[in-house]
Amino acid sequence: MRIKDTHKQDAIISATVELVNEIGFVSSSVAKIAKKANVSPATLYVYYTNKEDLLVSTYIEIKKKMSDELLKNIDNTKPFRDILKDFWNNTFDFVSKNKGLFQYAEQFSNSPYSDLVNQSELEKHFEPMMRILQKGIDQKIIKDVPFEILTVFIFYPVMLLSNSKVCKKLTMDNETVETAFNLAWDAIKL
Amino acid sequence: MRIKDTHKQDAIISATVELVNEIGFVSSSVAKIAKKANVSPATLYVYYTNKEDLLVSTYIEIKKKMSDELLKNIDNTKPFRDILKDFWNNTFDFVSKNKGLFQYAEQFSNSPYSDLVNQSELEKHFEPMMRILQKGIDQKIIKDVPFEILTVFIFYPVMLLSNSKVCKKLTMDNETVETAFNLAWDAIKL
Repeated sequence: MRIKDTHKQDAIISATVELVNEIGFVSSSVAKIAKKANVSPATLYVYYTNKEDLLVSTYIEIKKKMSDELLKNIDNTKPFRDILKDFWNNTFDFVSKNKGLFQYAEQFSNSPYSDLVNQSELEKHFEPMMRILQKGIDQKIIKDVPFEILTVFIFYPVMLLSNSKVCKKLTMDNETVETAFNLAWDAIKL
Repeated sequence: MRIKDTHKQDAIISATVELVNEIGFVSSSVAKIAKKANVSPATLYVYYTNKEDLLVSTYIEIKKKMSDELLKNIDNTKPFRDILKDFWNNTFDFVSKNKGLFQYAEQFSNSPYSDLVNQSELEKHFEPMMRILQKGIDQKIIKDVPFEILTVFIFYPVMLLSNSKVCKKLTMDNETVETAFNLAWDAIKL
């Protein structure tokens, strides 16, 4: 039974992402999402109390998936710069392979729905990254500035560059990904 | 007559931004936008051939306004770093004072409508900035990397940090804006 539940929930999340990317947040009704996910609206309401809950949960799910991917094969014994380089490459892989999820997340975080997100629930998923950054600050390898500032230099640039809607002309081959990382590293290193 | 026309067009653009930020791209019909702008749908069709044209033109208009604001009081005789600092501060001012326009632009660039934008028309407005960056490359002050990479370090971070939807916790006072600029400068300088 548990496996079936997870499958249904995955189908609902996928349908939400697809439909919202296609027709937007407002037009995506629970009925239409349920139909696309091949479940009844009643089944959908077993998992989500209402449309807002579904939209917010989908966003959190994407962020969770993203943080899982970012942490994949991270080796804490490596030199600090190499750990950040692995984050950078993992982010590039995730965004390149999951354009739909990323598009949903970007639209969501600029929509009024983003005010409904429980920020501490969201941050929980990114704590391992924040702990690593804190270690770099403590060891005087990177600058002691607020996490938000570090984040816009060490996580966002690769997301923006991998997003073909924002960055229409540049082809992101391995060399370009590395060139951009060098700038990110120069930004944050002490 | 000309003044009245411009006023009407401004009202239509403002109504488009407001309505889209409120109810999304798909639900924002020409009829609803015309009503909000206090013009007849027939008047709206004098300026825009259809909804897509209106949405795209609104985006271009915002980008044009943004580039005008970025170039405000830019003094080409200043040292290169100071010119970029002025761009940075102008960006911060623009985004802080025009949250609605910025929210529309972010949502738009992540939506399918962004594929309808004439890229060279858009880039035209940012040519003065690109010429300045090119001068910095030629004079070996900043790194010789693609414009897109320079852009994600020298323009995007301040936009992201000034966007309260993305950056919910950090208060952007003058000191924080300056701290972030130091990282951007370290990223791009040779």
